[in-house]
Amino acid sequence: MTDSITVSGLVATVPRHIVTGEGLPITSFRLASTQRRFDRSNQRWIDGETNWYTITSFRQLAINSATSVGKGDRVVLTGRLKIREWENADRSGTNIEIEADSLGHDLMWGTAQFSRTIANTG
Amino acid sequence: MTDSITVSGLVATVPRHIVTGEGLPITSFRLASTQRRFDRSNQRWIDGETNWYTITSFRQLAINSATSVGKGDRVVLTGRLKIREWENADRSGTNIEIEADSLGHDLMWGTAQFSRTIANTG
Amino acid sequence: MTDSITVSGLVATVPRHIVTGEGLPITSFRLASTQRRFDRSNQRWIDGETNWYTITSFRQLAINSATSVGKGDRVVLTGRLKIREWENADRSGTNIEIEADSLGHDLMWGTAQFSRTIANTG
Amino acid sequence: MTDSITVSGLVATVPRHIVTGEGLPITSFRLASTQRRFDRSNQRWIDGETNWYTITSFRQLAINSATSVGKGDRVVLTGRLKIREWENADRSGTNIEIEADSLGHDLMWGTAQFSRTIANTG
Repeated sequence: MTDSITVSGLVATVPRHIVTGEGLPITSFRLASTQRRFDRSNQRWIDGETNWYTITSFRQLAINSATSVGKGDRVVLTGRLKIREWENADRSGTNIEIEADSLGHDLMWGTAQFSRTIANTG
Repeated sequence: MTDSITVSGLVATVPRHIVTGEGLPITSFRLASTQRRFDRSNQRWIDGETNWYTITSFRQLAINSATSVGKGDRVVLTGRLKIREWENADRSGTNIEIEADSLGHDLMWGTAQFSRTIANTG
Repeated sequence: MTDSITVSGLVATVPRHIVTGEGLPITSFRLASTQRRFDRSNQRWIDGETNWYTITSFRQLAINSATSVGKGDRVVLTGRLKIREWENADRSGTNIEIEADSLGHDLMWGTAQFSRTIANTG
Repeated sequence: MTDSITVSGLVATVPRHIVTGEGLPITSFRLASTQRRFDRSNQRWIDGETNWYTITSFRQLAINSATSVGKGDRVVLTGRLKIREWENADRSGTNIEIEADSLGHDLMWGTAQFSRTIANTG
């Protein structure tokens, strides 16, 4: 099974765009997804805790994200969750990554002008 | 349990924007989500069948969608699936609706210029 | 994109098990997924509207479901949503199906004794 | 937004059941979710990398899980992902937890006898 997940949140770093030696475009940034919960005692929604992710995209999505997404933007995306332990000489940690299949600005938080770069095929 | 679903697809109708008598903004459009599958005999991805939905948004998301989303755009969205049987004097049918919580243009298919209308709060 | 969905609900019909002429085992039943929502005025959770699905499983999952799942059971499942219009000489309608990838009794509602039929491989 | 996720996998530890001083039942265990991917060169599905989670349940689901789920079982569950950094005098790390809303044995891997403990209400 693939661990699919959909999140929305705040782009917390300037997206980094690279092209590998094999010609694969990759764009990645950090995303903060803050949970909202209803506070019954005060009868209003409040911010809860925050999940942090590294969002990675490849190929056409990476190319379009690099020119469209900036730090501070709000986005919604869906993809595959990958949890990886890492370790080097000095330190170790856990990388929590989502490889995005679809990604866009969240219109809950603003407006967007869209320009198609790929023709409709289906 | 809430039947949450995330879909991406083609906006197939001009979005319709109304404001109810109580002042609630609502925007809705039809979405075609075409499944992709890997054709092993020909070693390539091909279009499969299509799911059709009515996408509905409310309040700020409805206002921003009305000015940002057009027929022919590609979007990604997440929300709650609502399946309702309907019937009138002449006919009956089934309405398959997703009430969107987050919605944006799918950058897999194009670029977008985003303008924040709500300040970051969390 | 595949329209993945996870639902939990009540098995509303006796599961029907068939084996096709080609030897493919298929099990299907109707599922009622009733949405729960928090009623703020009365400060408690209440039942909302109900989504109805046809749940279909194939191969090993179909074989095990046929002997394990009964009408009235509570289950949780994840799979691919397929919305299909149908029409015959007299009538037409919409079939809302989930092809299950994983399916089990929801332990929120009872206990279960599990017997492995497939050895662990990963 | 709540970061909902559905996973299926192998129960890798003996579930631990406690009741807090306030009387809240909690059950938790470690889950290994191994991704499957289609190896085109060999035309077959193979195991990919593994995501590890701490699965936590509360109240009735915790009570039923404690008597129903054992190490080595295969389960499917849906819930809310919570990523938390922790740190003590000696070490630091990241805890990746799913608070389960629904959880059951995955009938892809075996059969189950289910006993309802809660009557149907909806």
